[in-house]
Amino acid sequence: MINEIRIYTQAELKSAIRLDLDVVDVIERAFAALASGSVVMPDILSMELADAHGEVDVKTAYIPGFDGFAIKVSPGFFNNPALGLPSLNGLMILLCAKTGMVRSVFLDNGYLTDIRTAAAGAVAARHLAPQQVTTAGVIGAGVQARLQIQAAHLVRPFEQVLVWGRDMAKAQSCADDLAQSLGITARACASAQDVVAGSQLVVTTTPAKSPIIQADWLHPGLHITAMGSDQTGKTEIHPAALAAADLYVCDSIRQCQVSGELEGAERAGTLGAAQAVELGTIVAGAHSGRRSADAITICDLTGTGAQDTAIASHVSQLLTNLGTVVQN
Amino acid sequence: MINEIRIYTQAELKSAIRLDLDVVDVIERAFAALASGSVVMPDILSMELADAHGEVDVKTAYIPGFDGFAIKVSPGFFNNPALGLPSLNGLMILLCAKTGMVRSVFLDNGYLTDIRTAAAGAVAARHLAPQQVTTAGVIGAGVQARLQIQAAHLVRPFEQVLVWGRDMAKAQSCADDLAQSLGITARACASAQDVVAGSQLVVTTTPAKSPIIQADWLHPGLHITAMGSDQTGKTEIHPAALAAADLYVCDSIRQCQVSGELEGAERAGTLGAAQAVELGTIVAGAHSGRRSADAITICDLTGTGAQDTAIASHVSQLLTNLGTVVQN
Repeated sequence: MINEIRIYTQAELKSAIRLDLDVVDVIERAFAALASGSVVMPDILSMELADAHGEVDVKTAYIPGFDGFAIKVSPGFFNNPALGLPSLNGLMILLCAKTGMVRSVFLDNGYLTDIRTAAAGAVAARHLAPQQVTTAGVIGAGVQARLQIQAAHLVRPFEQVLVWGRDMAKAQSCADDLAQSLGITARACASAQDVVAGSQLVVTTTPAKSPIIQADWLHPGLHITAMGSDQTGKTEIHPAALAAADLYVCDSIRQCQVSGELEGAERAGTLGAAQAVELGTIVAGAHSGRRSADAITICDLTGTGAQDTAIASHVSQLLTNLGTVVQN
Repeated sequence: MINEIRIYTQAELKSAIRLDLDVVDVIERAFAALASGSVVMPDILSMELADAHGEVDVKTAYIPGFDGFAIKVSPGFFNNPALGLPSLNGLMILLCAKTGMVRSVFLDNGYLTDIRTAAAGAVAARHLAPQQVTTAGVIGAGVQARLQIQAAHLVRPFEQVLVWGRDMAKAQSCADDLAQSLGITARACASAQDVVAGSQLVVTTTPAKSPIIQADWLHPGLHITAMGSDQTGKTEIHPAALAAADLYVCDSIRQCQVSGELEGAERAGTLGAAQAVELGTIVAGAHSGRRSADAITICDLTGTGAQDTAIASHVSQLLTNLGTVVQN
């Protein structure tokens, strides 16, 4: 029996899907499903290729009711920029949830991951940021810095964005890009502390291995989404800051204990899994989330296979007539 | 920068590669590499989709010195035959070991897995079976029953094969196919015990969840390769039989403790990891393997990511001018 498989290039995917509220809603439903307890989401397969300063992660999840499930392969090879290649690339495969047959291969080079990761930031902002956000801040000045701020702006249409990065020129370039794409005021700051002090909503997007955000930087009415840490040993927020917040939320307690901010906090003894709330339980209404305008909230995102299954399924529905068809 | 990705269909793969001594040698080198300790091979990612009576495994391994590494996705959906589809399908992806860029996608529906699994059986037979094998036996009557016997015949050109399966008609059909393809005598037996009694080399290829081969069936000068168990709870050989053999060999101690015959034996307390020898150490000459013509040896194969990386790399070299090229 011949199976029809659709192969999509990065260019086709970029032309067909972009970060918008539809995608945010799709990812929000994935978080709600996760909270229901019915999603099957194995531990991430992770392999280090030390010789090449590389790593590869594989994520998947089965969401009951979805026709398909994604298997997402994310390589990160950190010598690539010197070779003129992006560090992150990879692909997603969508398989039929009834038969396991391969339906689609998305040669996205990480584009769908970028989109679904930013959309998760928007879900966190929608449910946890103060209702009134006039200034947002971002730590880091790369692709996710831009996308996270675009995503957050969909749900909190702030007027100003502050950017900090280790390289001031890159931070300014990021600010310029955001000013242009969002039509808002944007400027680079001299310190991460300045960004936090001036913002009601902050997103951290770095691969830092020692905490950037300190406990005494926190102020009433602040929400921080930390999306950079996705490997054991990475951390952007000091364990004392996590403990000082009124609420610590994460995408997956199990994952964050291994590779998120929760890992360092548990090791430091400042915060435990018992205090952690999964974002999906807030989306689903089982936890109230932010208690008041003055509360301090933190959301720790490591990226879940459920998001991958949700975005791949969504894209598949959008693109039914595109792609290269392979009869197999 | 444009990356060229080659997509290969199952038909292209079947026309270009078949089970032969070249493939056996390729897989043998993967075992030797595994024994060297330099291979990075994470635990298998495994997900159950209970609603669909399905499961999916993802395997990978990085073998130093190889240009690429494979990520192999193996779904098994056991309601498929009722839908006219094979239970097993899936694909392999070959990524560049220097950059992580996707090089090739092999839409093999499990064909490369079949080949590399049978080749591992040949490696086990080459290093562990008695030098003189006149009769080989196989328990099970499916695709792997045929391929394992074809593979074993490459390294031990026996004159007769005995087949046992739960369905006598299927066992006879398997025997007929083997008689024709190998030009040898082949017959179906009324019991698995008859197969073992009459053979010097036996391969078990079933998804059994209770042991088929009993300790008192073992006889001097016997080698058994058990390749069916690849999930916790599956077992083809009684724990007492494993302990009664002179030598227990496996592809990966770590994997076999979770999903091979070693799992049940450890639980039963008849055999532990300390008594287990990895096949690669025998291939590499660090363990002598079979001690005498009369010894009883057992090899437990669960299937490794190293085999997947080896076969995908080999196929990639054979097929440089085939496949559909996608510019990405």
